Amino acid sequence: MAPPVKNAVRAAAAPTEEWSSQPEVTAAHPPKNAAGDGDRRPISTVLIIIAMQTEALPLVNKFHLSEDIDGSLFPKGVPWVRYHGIYKELHINLVWTGKDSILGVDSIGTISASLVSYASIQALKPDLIINAGTAGGFKAKGACVADVYLVSNVAFHDRRIPIHVNYLYGIGARQTFSTPNLIDELNLKVGKLSTGDSLDMSPQDEVLILANDAVVKDMEGAAVAYVADLLSVPAIFIKAVTNTVDGQKSIAEEFLQNLIAVCTTLAQTVSQVVDFISGKCLSEL
Amino acid sequence: MAPPVKNAVRAAAAPTEEWSSQPEVTAAHPPKNAAGDGDRRPISTVLIIIAMQTEALPLVNKFHLSEDIDGSLFPKGVPWVRYHGIYKELHINLVWTGKDSILGVDSIGTISASLVSYASIQALKPDLIINAGTAGGFKAKGACVADVYLVSNVAFHDRRIPIHVNYLYGIGARQTFSTPNLIDELNLKVGKLSTGDSLDMSPQDEVLILANDAVVKDMEGAAVAYVADLLSVPAIFIKAVTNTVDGQKSIAEEFLQNLIAVCTTLAQTVSQVVDFISGKCLSEL
Repeated sequence: MAPPVKNAVRAAAAPTEEWSSQPEVTAAHPPKNAAGDGDRRPISTVLIIIAMQTEALPLVNKFHLSEDIDGSLFPKGVPWVRYHGIYKELHINLVWTGKDSILGVDSIGTISASLVSYASIQALKPDLIINAGTAGGFKAKGACVADVYLVSNVAFHDRRIPIHVNYLYGIGARQTFSTPNLIDELNLKVGKLSTGDSLDMSPQDEVLILANDAVVKDMEGAAVAYVADLLSVPAIFIKAVTNTVDGQKSIAEEFLQNLIAVCTTLAQTVSQVVDFISGKCLSEL
Repeated sequence: MAPPVKNAVRAAAAPTEEWSSQPEVTAAHPPKNAAGDGDRRPISTVLIIIAMQTEALPLVNKFHLSEDIDGSLFPKGVPWVRYHGIYKELHINLVWTGKDSILGVDSIGTISASLVSYASIQALKPDLIINAGTAGGFKAKGACVADVYLVSNVAFHDRRIPIHVNYLYGIGARQTFSTPNLIDELNLKVGKLSTGDSLDMSPQDEVLILANDAVVKDMEGAAVAYVADLLSVPAIFIKAVTNTVDGQKSIAEEFLQNLIAVCTTLAQTVSQVVDFISGKCLSEL
């Protein structure tokens, strides 16, 4: 799809307070990671990128992965943790961004996700990336707690740069790798994802989330997509809803309340996706 | 400095609307990159990280740097550009994050800055990082257009995660590498920097910028500091004020109006800093 630059530039030139007019910003970056006709060998190496330990562990167990103890894949000092193993003839690498060394909390958000994506792609040369995680969902768009979405498009909602085309760069809208057979076979819900570094949602975030037409909101997806796109690796995004963003409850409370149960659901879907991938090439997804 | 975790955790547990009480969040991460007593060899390799071409070119000219044409330092697909050369016995590497391949605009913001920092540190093993760039300044804190600041502390203002210690992780407050002699010798203004991915400032950003006690606001600094800290490389931050954030004028207009002139001033200061560094070891800065 050709980037709708003309419309978008006009919209981008508008001052901040007019952004609520929801400019057309989807897919300024068409997917350059689509599987070519020549790429007909079966998928061999899968990289699963995850930001929270609670999201990672059910999958580590499901796929019987081992932790990379010597940690030689990544430089000294980074908290990133790699689990790996062979499952149904696939080399599965699950990389979790790890815990902050001082604060002891998960290294969530776009910076850690982009760094881990870059370093893991360089080290592992995966055929396919799966970014799996929890997300907030929009009730108004039909999302319910425990729903799992396969993401069709990603964009950012907290990078406001109201200077001409820089606006589109900030939004960073991208189509994800297309997987029509996977969606049909597993009967997955499909929707757009908006990414930002805050768990809550400010009024400014909300304007851009609406403009991004998002049904789910996370803190990593569009960053993983950016790096995957730079390095031409196909990436898919599986997001499970822990809380509604536009509901009556506190986002933080609902998130914590549902986290563990929803991570089990997330792991089930990721496992089904990996089962489907096994033995197939990219163009069959 | 011991992290003020207790106070900060209490503050972090408060709901979003109470953040305006400005919790103590400075320097949850004390500098682990301070030069040890053993590190007394002269600084040899300097990595200058820059987000905009307009900021980079005056320095490329000043230091007579050559562009790394074969681009073998970085993987295929990334837009990052390295300029290098020897200046006053220092190996100077200036890495600019480059232009977005589709949109043709500078790859500004925290994701590109963190990726370039990571990849450049891995490839070049610098003794010292200088993150140089333009910034918005706060009139109320004494900043004027064309002022150049050496940054004492960095933090983020657009990563709101109101769940216990995750709040501190989001803020990411860090002390920068201490350079008392450099500050005295060049008579530099010193102040705190707050980083976010938007050029404008939302009311939620403003609350955290105030809590961060920032005199300047940019779109990369705290991300570069995060990566430098992970990989234990000392980093200093030189930020030149293109516009006031709390003034009457439009941020975007004032930024564009002053950009070229302020980049010349920025280059002069960076050049003086590099002159001062030449022949010294880290502990002499």
